[in-house]
Amino acid sequence: MYQLYYWPGIQGRGEYVRLALEEAAAPYQDLALVPEARGGGAKAIASVIDDASIARPPFAPPFLRAGRQWIGQTPNILLYLGERLRLAPADGAGRLWAHQLQLTIADFLVEIHDTHHPIGSGLYYEDQKAAARRRARDFTAHRLPKFLGYFERVLERSGGRWAAGRRFSYVDLSLAQVVAGLRYAFPRATRRGLRRCPLLVVLHDRVVERPRIAAYLASPRRVPFNDDDIFRHYPELDG
Amino acid sequence: MYQLYYWPGIQGRGEYVRLALEEAAAPYQDLALVPEARGGGAKAIASVIDDASIARPPFAPPFLRAGRQWIGQTPNILLYLGERLRLAPADGAGRLWAHQLQLTIADFLVEIHDTHHPIGSGLYYEDQKAAARRRARDFTAHRLPKFLGYFERVLERSGGRWAAGRRFSYVDLSLAQVVAGLRYAFPRATRRGLRRCPLLVVLHDRVVERPRIAAYLASPRRVPFNDDDIFRHYPELDG
Repeated sequence: MYQLYYWPGIQGRGEYVRLALEEAAAPYQDLALVPEARGGGAKAIASVIDDASIARPPFAPPFLRAGRQWIGQTPNILLYLGERLRLAPADGAGRLWAHQLQLTIADFLVEIHDTHHPIGSGLYYEDQKAAARRRARDFTAHRLPKFLGYFERVLERSGGRWAAGRRFSYVDLSLAQVVAGLRYAFPRATRRGLRRCPLLVVLHDRVVERPRIAAYLASPRRVPFNDDDIFRHYPELDG
Repeated sequence: MYQLYYWPGIQGRGEYVRLALEEAAAPYQDLALVPEARGGGAKAIASVIDDASIARPPFAPPFLRAGRQWIGQTPNILLYLGERLRLAPADGAGRLWAHQLQLTIADFLVEIHDTHHPIGSGLYYEDQKAAARRRARDFTAHRLPKFLGYFERVLERSGGRWAAGRRFSYVDLSLAQVVAGLRYAFPRATRRGLRRCPLLVVLHDRVVERPRIAAYLASPRRVPFNDDDIFRHYPELDG
C-alpha cells in the first residue's frame, strides 16, 4: 500500500503520480482526500516535513511513502514507480529516456506555473498581474510552441503511438495531463499550438479512453481543474 | 570517452556534469572548448538538436554522448554517471535519494536563474529589471534561506559529512558549486543565509580541496563566474 502526500484541492504535481497509480490499479491512499482530523490533508504534509526522525526528508510535496522509504520529487517518484508498476520501458536505457522526458515535462510545468506567478509563489496573483501578462506573452508566443513541438517530434521518432518507445509508459499519462491542462488554462494558444501536433492530440485521446483512466477521471477522486492550481484559466494570459 | 555538449563561455548546468567527470578523472571531451570550425561550440549543439536521425533527441543542453546513447537533463546525466563513476551511493534506494537531492538542486537553480530573468529567457535583463528586483527580493528573503536550510538539515541527518550518506557523491560536488555560485551572485544574502548552515560551509571547503577538483578549478578548463551565466552578480538584486 503506497501513501501519497499532496496538497488537498488541486491536481498539481501530485496528479502525475495519481495517474500512474490509477492506471496500474495500485493500492494507494491519497492523503489529500483524508480529512485533517483523521490524519490527512495539509497537516499530514507538515508532520512529515517537520519529522526529525526521517533520515531522508522531502523538500516539498508530492512525496510517496513506500514501505520504509520516503520518495520525493515527482519525476523521481515516477522513476521509482515506473519499473514496479510496469509503466516504463523494460530496459535501463529506455527507462533513463522516459525519465529524461518526464524531467522535460517538469521543466514545462515550472514555466506554466510561472506565467501566473512570475515574481513569487508566496505573493497573490493580483500583486503580480502586470508581470504575469508579460511572462505569459513570452510563454504563449515562444515556450509553449517549443515544448509542444519537441514532444511531437519525440512521438514522430518513437513511431507515433507512445512517447518513450513501443510500450505505454507514465510519460504518456503525463503528456495527456499536460495537454488537458493547457487546454483549460490557455485554450486559444493551445489550440494554435496543437495544430502542428496531431500525434500529441491523438495520444491525449488514447490516454483518456483507457478504461482505468476514464474511470478515474469520472470519479470523485479526480479534483477538477481550478484556479488555485498550476493550470489556471486567466483569459488575460491566453495570448 | 564521453562527449559533453554545452554552451561555450558559461558554467551553467554543464558545470555539474563537468565536476563529476573531473572528480572521477573520466575521459571526456568538452565540446564547449572546441572551436566551431573544428566541430565544437554552439554549432555542435544545434547540429544534434536538428539531427533527425537521433531517435531520442535532447530538448536542450547539457547533454552527454555515451557510446550510442544521448542523455539529456543534468540530473539524469548525473544519475547515469553517478553509478558508473562510483560517485553515488552503492544501493538503489541510496541512488534514488541522491537523485532526489539533485532534483531539488535543479529546482533551486531555476529560481536562482529567474531572479534575473523573471519575464523571459529570450529577453534582456535590462528589459525586466523592475520585475527582477521584486523577484530577487522574494528570493533572498524566503527561497534562498529555505533551500539552504533544507540542505543543512539533510547534512545533519546524514551524519554531517556528505549529503547523500556516508559515501561522497556527485550531490556534494553540486552543493559546493551552488554555494560558490551563490557567494558570487548574492554575497550579502548568502553570507546571511550561510550563518545558520555551518555544515554546508564545511562541505564546500572539503569539496574544493579535493585534489582533482582543486586542479580543475585552477585549470583553464574552468570557466570563471560571469554575468552571462545562471549566477550573476547584479548588486541591485542582492537583498
